[in-house]
Amino acid sequence: MIQERLKKVLRIMEEEKLPQMIISDPSAIFYLTGKWILPGERMLALYITLSGHDKLFINELFPMSEGIGIETVWYNDVQKPVEILAKYVEKDKPMGIDKNWPSHFLLRLMELKGGSTFVNASGIIDKVRMCKDEREKELMRNASKLNDIAVGKMINLIPKKYSEKKMGKILSDIWEELGAEGHSFDPIVGYGVNAANPHHVMDGSTVKEGDSVVIDIGCKKDSYCSDMTRTVFYKYVPEHSKEVYNVVLEANKRGIEKAKAGVRFCDIDAAARDYITEKGYGKYFTHRLGHSIGIDDHDFGDVSSVNTDIVQPGQIFSIEPGIYIPGEVGVRIEDLVIATEDGCEVLNHYPKNLMIVE
Amino acid sequence: MIQERLKKVLRIMEEEKLPQMIISDPSAIFYLTGKWILPGERMLALYITLSGHDKLFINELFPMSEGIGIETVWYNDVQKPVEILAKYVEKDKPMGIDKNWPSHFLLRLMELKGGSTFVNASGIIDKVRMCKDEREKELMRNASKLNDIAVGKMINLIPKKYSEKKMGKILSDIWEELGAEGHSFDPIVGYGVNAANPHHVMDGSTVKEGDSVVIDIGCKKDSYCSDMTRTVFYKYVPEHSKEVYNVVLEANKRGIEKAKAGVRFCDIDAAARDYITEKGYGKYFTHRLGHSIGIDDHDFGDVSSVNTDIVQPGQIFSIEPGIYIPGEVGVRIEDLVIATEDGCEVLNHYPKNLMIVE
Repeated sequence: MIQERLKKVLRIMEEEKLPQMIISDPSAIFYLTGKWILPGERMLALYITLSGHDKLFINELFPMSEGIGIETVWYNDVQKPVEILAKYVEKDKPMGIDKNWPSHFLLRLMELKGGSTFVNASGIIDKVRMCKDEREKELMRNASKLNDIAVGKMINLIPKKYSEKKMGKILSDIWEELGAEGHSFDPIVGYGVNAANPHHVMDGSTVKEGDSVVIDIGCKKDSYCSDMTRTVFYKYVPEHSKEVYNVVLEANKRGIEKAKAGVRFCDIDAAARDYITEKGYGKYFTHRLGHSIGIDDHDFGDVSSVNTDIVQPGQIFSIEPGIYIPGEVGVRIEDLVIATEDGCEVLNHYPKNLMIVE
Repeated sequence: MIQERLKKVLRIMEEEKLPQMIISDPSAIFYLTGKWILPGERMLALYITLSGHDKLFINELFPMSEGIGIETVWYNDVQKPVEILAKYVEKDKPMGIDKNWPSHFLLRLMELKGGSTFVNASGIIDKVRMCKDEREKELMRNASKLNDIAVGKMINLIPKKYSEKKMGKILSDIWEELGAEGHSFDPIVGYGVNAANPHHVMDGSTVKEGDSVVIDIGCKKDSYCSDMTRTVFYKYVPEHSKEVYNVVLEANKRGIEKAKAGVRFCDIDAAARDYITEKGYGKYFTHRLGHSIGIDDHDFGDVSSVNTDIVQPGQIFSIEPGIYIPGEVGVRIEDLVIATEDGCEVLNHYPKNLMIVE
């Protein structure tokens, strides 16, 4: 266990009067223990308590090469893991539940009365995870450095006219060459009208002259994620696409300008969104401005119009305005930033002024 | 909606007196609608009721090219989807919940009193999905035909002495050539001592003379999965490894011999396990004999010592005994079978007698 992180979690549990909680998310368990355990459909539960009776419940199919410094309760495929877990919990006290714990485990624990009440307690650990320590910031900078290199390589490949799918495969090789663990999310290379769908899945499409090319990629390096988007044009840029590009670029800059400890997340969203709306493209910016990032590509915490939480120093999130005009053009420009007391540190350095690839 | 499948589900809901349920699993939604919707962290809920007020709740970021023939309720990133869902449910009646619905949705629905009680109702649809119709059987046969070809190609590559990781990448290309959608699960190519870990993750290891090579692979083709394991030896087979191989092979055959509608799943497990135990290797067979398979590689329904359910005609599952002697040798031999009234149809045809690759 990484004691300083566990202590932060226990302190908030104490403040919120939550005596016990179950953590099942492998990323959260990695955050607290430094070990990846990927149990698939099988139950994995790190049970932490104010009373100090922490335990890890794990299927014996997942032997760990080293212990993680807390008591481990093993079960096998013919045992019922929730029944075993229920024997150890404080049944007369509230129980915190991990937000993504599959419901069947929770419903069974409720049947077994494994707690007096059940609450979604992920917010406690999520909020601790949002503020990165110095070691984590360094890992995030490193992952984004690799992303700067990779996006450059990808843009240089556009003239080869590979299909979107082929570009995705080449990117896997690029991550391997660069020493990254792999993609941090399903990458997007979208040509032309495909670029106008913010969740396009790469297909056999190839680039055409005048297309915008959206490249939204990221890697995992030492368990931390990068995530950046650049949009370039192939051969030439139609006049209207150029206007759209410049609006998105200015919105990206205004978001970054606003990002700072002490402001609300919704104010950062507004800084970018209001500009896009003012320019007449509001209805084509169909998603939140950004998301937190760290061990997961989508960590807890949106940069959205409804998140009134105050930004804290050390929080890392994306600023990624986009305009998607169906059937015509799509542009998104995304950078990651670390919030500081007096502004933010931008983690991506690949240029973002309008670029035409010949 | 695929009406005949929906009707089967509604019939069981009626028998079990469950007036309404929420289905969130994309595979189950595909089974009932023929459409894949992959919403990531965002809420997706197919709400079905005995009263006929079926609805699909979906984020507007996931536009569907065609409707699925039921009323759709859209929400966006600044709305609260569970609040919207709760407005439509029958609050004074029991609510069925999908087993893998993330707990935070369920806890919120409970707070909003979106049902009189909450039960894990996935068993209803899981049991319908277990018995494949003729169209599904044909798709399963096709996916396994591709797997027979792919495992042959992989075995032929062993003399090239590629690393396990490299073999995994080549397999991706093989699936593409064969017209499959991709892997149906993370493939395993394990050399030597790595083969002795049933959940080995492929690494940079290369093959050595006398190694057993476990190849556990499968593809998705037209949304249905294949899954097969073959174990071969490189250059020569040590005497003890040969004995282990023959025990596993006989256990595989005994499992297949037993598989038939009307027997219990645990009896099939026992047919293979008892033989391995009798030969003195019981403690090295550390997992269940098999699992159901269909749209998911691991469909609901284990072939294990604790599953006393009776096999029905049309159910498809794996028979995959293994012996794993840490640090020495691992062998697994896996086939898929379709249960019939008087036995079973084996879907894999790649040979399984002991093979030494030169």
